[in-house]
Amino acid sequence: MSDTGLQIGFLIFPRMTHLDFAGPWEVLSRLPGATLHVVAKDLAPVEGSGLKVLPTVTLENCPQLDLICVPGGPGHLEAMEDEAVLHFLREQEIGCRFLTSVCTGALVLAAAGLLHGFKATTHWASHDRLAAFGAEPEKARVVVDRNRITGGGVTAGIDFALTLVAALEGETFARQVQLGLEYAPEPPFPGAGSPDEAGDAVLEAARAATAPYRARMAEVDARALARLSRVTL
Amino acid sequence: MSDTGLQIGFLIFPRMTHLDFAGPWEVLSRLPGATLHVVAKDLAPVEGSGLKVLPTVTLENCPQLDLICVPGGPGHLEAMEDEAVLHFLREQEIGCRFLTSVCTGALVLAAAGLLHGFKATTHWASHDRLAAFGAEPEKARVVVDRNRITGGGVTAGIDFALTLVAALEGETFARQVQLGLEYAPEPPFPGAGSPDEAGDAVLEAARAATAPYRARMAEVDARALARLSRVTL
Repeated sequence: MSDTGLQIGFLIFPRMTHLDFAGPWEVLSRLPGATLHVVAKDLAPVEGSGLKVLPTVTLENCPQLDLICVPGGPGHLEAMEDEAVLHFLREQEIGCRFLTSVCTGALVLAAAGLLHGFKATTHWASHDRLAAFGAEPEKARVVVDRNRITGGGVTAGIDFALTLVAALEGETFARQVQLGLEYAPEPPFPGAGSPDEAGDAVLEAARAATAPYRARMAEVDARALARLSRVTL
Repeated sequence: MSDTGLQIGFLIFPRMTHLDFAGPWEVLSRLPGATLHVVAKDLAPVEGSGLKVLPTVTLENCPQLDLICVPGGPGHLEAMEDEAVLHFLREQEIGCRFLTSVCTGALVLAAAGLLHGFKATTHWASHDRLAAFGAEPEKARVVVDRNRITGGGVTAGIDFALTLVAALEGETFARQVQLGLEYAPEPPFPGAGSPDEAGDAVLEAARAATAPYRARMAEVDARALARLSRVTL
């Protein structure tokens, strides 16, 4: 294993889903020689899933990153309309090696115009939103297309990050990290984590519970697309 | 699903493994009506895996908890020798409904004398340390014995927490949470997360890398056992 010297930044925002961020953070923190940054608009604590974490650097002061990861969660909707966030991603993209997301973080990349023409995935309940932004939605837990790597919902961030570690440092090292994290998952209800196998009753309950959230998604997506069409005029 | 009204506390400490804590936090934060506390010695940010999180309550000011969860990580060794932490756990145990741990957090419970006579698990590399504390080590990702629930290493915290949600709120609700978290894991190297399947080369590399850490574990365990024998005299 080599000293990667990688500058890795997680772009976080209020009302993110904490585990979208914490899963890949834990995995990537084990990359030798990597420097991990918690990037936010300012240095005030950022709340997600009821937990407050401290950023280490602001959007303005962040160095050029080699790898950017955008988590998702309810606050992705505000992030999709935050010009400072979108500008940061567009500027960083030019010099970064990997532009990545977990869960609905993909929609933030999409709103910045950065998934156009790329295969991508996101949380299952938002998968149908990607195409409008010119992405090619692919149903997979981790989707790699050139330098874009996108993960599915929440816990997919762990699979995403291990895939990335294998790409950067090789399979042997990735296997060591996987063993260190004792990542031999045994979900208590096999299949229940995928919409294809969850069963109609559970799926319907999930959809009913998130109906107001979906209505807001549609509004934000429409505004983000209108904004994008102005940017690309 | 009912309003649980549960008071849930995660006892955190410096140099914890952040994901030991963040995995079950994310899952349990979805329990209806639960109040989640980040409990620490004081309210200063607590660093684990390079991330800083803000506690919400101190050991002294923490209300009686219904459920306590202790994560693990390198700092579990200092926690095992911290009288304030051990006292807190012993006091809380009397009135709590579930006393739980993830990863090497089990050794903190053990150092408080709270796993004596209970079946338990911990991170695979520390499994052989449990018996000296009177626990009955069991090789499983989640071990339930009366009101003690212990999880294996790091990522086992997600399986642990979903098992707990099912016990508290029933299988249908637990399945909804699992779907919301899209927990349909696909480890990039199946089997690599378990010491039984990791292969000799990876296992040897992991053991070699942690040799100095293991030497410290042996010292701390010996002191913790000596202290416990005085407590129980």
